[in-house]
Amino acid sequence: MKFSTLPPKGTFDVLPEEMELRNWMQETIRETYEENGFAQIETPCIENLDLLTNSEGGENLQLLFKILKRGEKLNLSEVTEEMTENDLADLGLRFDLTLPLSRFYANNRNDLLNPFKAFQIGNVWRAERPQKGRFRQFTQCDIDILGDESIYAEIDLIFTVTKALKRLGFENCKVKINDRRLLREMVNRAKLPDGDFDSICISLDKADKIGLQGVKDELLGKGFLTERVDHLLALLEEVKAQGLDAFEGEEAEDLKLLIHNIEEYFPIEFEPTLVRGMGYYTGPIFEIESEDFKSSIAGGGRYDNLLSKFQKESLPAVGVSIGFERIFSILMEKDFLIPERRKKRALVFTKDEDLQRAIAFAEGLRDRGQIVSLVRVFNKMRKKLKQLENTYDQVDVIRDETVLGDLLEAHEL
Amino acid sequence: MKFSTLPPKGTFDVLPEEMELRNWMQETIRETYEENGFAQIETPCIENLDLLTNSEGGENLQLLFKILKRGEKLNLSEVTEEMTENDLADLGLRFDLTLPLSRFYANNRNDLLNPFKAFQIGNVWRAERPQKGRFRQFTQCDIDILGDESIYAEIDLIFTVTKALKRLGFENCKVKINDRRLLREMVNRAKLPDGDFDSICISLDKADKIGLQGVKDELLGKGFLTERVDHLLALLEEVKAQGLDAFEGEEAEDLKLLIHNIEEYFPIEFEPTLVRGMGYYTGPIFEIESEDFKSSIAGGGRYDNLLSKFQKESLPAVGVSIGFERIFSILMEKDFLIPERRKKRALVFTKDEDLQRAIAFAEGLRDRGQIVSLVRVFNKMRKKLKQLENTYDQVDVIRDETVLGDLLEAHEL
Repeated sequence: MKFSTLPPKGTFDVLPEEMELRNWMQETIRETYEENGFAQIETPCIENLDLLTNSEGGENLQLLFKILKRGEKLNLSEVTEEMTENDLADLGLRFDLTLPLSRFYANNRNDLLNPFKAFQIGNVWRAERPQKGRFRQFTQCDIDILGDESIYAEIDLIFTVTKALKRLGFENCKVKINDRRLLREMVNRAKLPDGDFDSICISLDKADKIGLQGVKDELLGKGFLTERVDHLLALLEEVKAQGLDAFEGEEAEDLKLLIHNIEEYFPIEFEPTLVRGMGYYTGPIFEIESEDFKSSIAGGGRYDNLLSKFQKESLPAVGVSIGFERIFSILMEKDFLIPERRKKRALVFTKDEDLQRAIAFAEGLRDRGQIVSLVRVFNKMRKKLKQLENTYDQVDVIRDETVLGDLLEAHEL
Repeated sequence: MKFSTLPPKGTFDVLPEEMELRNWMQETIRETYEENGFAQIETPCIENLDLLTNSEGGENLQLLFKILKRGEKLNLSEVTEEMTENDLADLGLRFDLTLPLSRFYANNRNDLLNPFKAFQIGNVWRAERPQKGRFRQFTQCDIDILGDESIYAEIDLIFTVTKALKRLGFENCKVKINDRRLLREMVNRAKLPDGDFDSICISLDKADKIGLQGVKDELLGKGFLTERVDHLLALLEEVKAQGLDAFEGEEAEDLKLLIHNIEEYFPIEFEPTLVRGMGYYTGPIFEIESEDFKSSIAGGGRYDNLLSKFQKESLPAVGVSIGFERIFSILMEKDFLIPERRKKRALVFTKDEDLQRAIAFAEGLRDRGQIVSLVRVFNKMRKKLKQLENTYDQVDVIRDETVLGDLLEAHEL
């Protein structure tokens, strides 16, 4: 029996050239996060299923990969129609890095600084219908600050993540910010029902695609009163014109402080229709858009209530996630060249007797920082050299004493 | 409802100090593999279940984490007693990196060099009964050479992996080598049944724990004829005395060439009772033992038949895996200090007005290669400074113009 050689639907193999770029991206991100004082942590890729299914993961809960119980815990002869998937499964693959971070913090807080500045690089899984740019396994790069209720946490995060994006080659970006509480204030001022806040936000979120008129039509279609929808739209126009001065209170003052401290380094602006999806956001929210690629490449916000799932006290928390796969595909498409990439050379030997000297010679070159692959070629020399020349920046052949001598001399070894 | 804050049974959270060590280990291994000409690749953590369950994974197949089918594919009302787990699940978590590599090679071989020198660093999952040093999710670091039938592949692998181990601080190690074909030759010469080869090997594998007399007792207990067991033991004694000269044929000559090329760099010896578990090994096998910690820290062998699961032609292949978790726990236990670890400093600001200058100052230090965490402290100054001093190598406080001025001057900024 021969098996399919394809990876599972919606997942992908990473070839050597792709891996080089992914490693460089991860290293650049890690280096930036580290130098700005964030500490890397890791949690398992699997979590207990009751934790995952009782999170506020929104639509991600429909996309869970659940892991079958094992051994005695799974008795197939006792399966009945009333049973649900959760009777058969006890673990699941994580769908983001934020929920595991919250569990991690509650589990280890005695060993952690307060505030705790964390970063994570890891895979997450979502059983999405496969389509271009959507994967079932993909890498996330998150930074979070736990335990700081001040707007400084947002400033620190946005400063750090925009610096990482610059180093990844995304100079031409814009940070858009808003605050869930300002959104709610507008909904309340327009006397729209507070209980429909989420539904109203879902419509508002489409403003950049369908325009404010489109938002209005959608809200009317949902049955909200014309007068109140008009009021909300008028408020939005007013806020768009006046900016944060349209509000009183510390939420607006905080956003002004945020803008004041970031704008020197990166374009940033208040965007009153920015919503972002995840249900657990409670305060400021933000998104970073690449102007060159008309694409959101990072985003995050404050989620002050998530920690209370695990511990008595709630804990202020704010996080941002880089769209690693989006950035990777943009860089691949534009044939991005990794800066300071090391040259690769192949050193070919043609008989067993040359091997020891070939090893010693290769080691001499490696000690000088070169990447050297020793390659044994005993036949089909011409064809194989051609293949090697397609892959390596330089190919040398040890054919006899003379050549090796020349090589040694040329490299002063 | 409050949830358990513990990670799932048999898995672990990685704290910042542990992460630093793990990153340094991975970077050291990656750097060594790369400079010796191996190319890093990655495959998904999940594979199709029929691929995993039809592999020669031996006992690992009992330890599979299986992933429940999703949506319409899973109909709980149609579950019957005759159904097996494989009717409910369609994916599984990989239990090693070798099987995915074989699939990867078959899937991408037109884009890969021949021979292909690959390395992988990634997690694997096995539902083992949790015990000290055994985890259900753990990291493996593998290098493999596909497409080279010569002993040079083993030389290249062992040379590269021992170099990595040296750099990880394991100078005092020994490579033990054997060949599955020499084991079989001894079993055949002793006229023991070839069909019981695996069972005989399982007993032989215990020689380092129970001695040759213990092996003899176990084989007699399994019902093999005394005369033949005695013959096998006599052969083993003879081979222990004469070494590889006890054999004729190219297997022994190959092992001699291997020893000849490695011994200059690392202690290596022939060990006729070395077996190694995995069912798919076909030729040379090897294990690297730390003398200081009386522990096997790497191992591998040749598996020439695995590729034929995916493609018509079989392909010579050999690989070695570093026991990453074992090495990590040894280094943690001996309080290993990471070489050239960068110092971490905290820069404390105490009021919003200082923030902009604090950011600029921190950036100046970071440009000089320092790790600087900006920390906001608005109250409980003494307590918080104490905490910071426990974590950071240096703590500076911006209290007023003067202090900042002094700091700027001291750093010539």
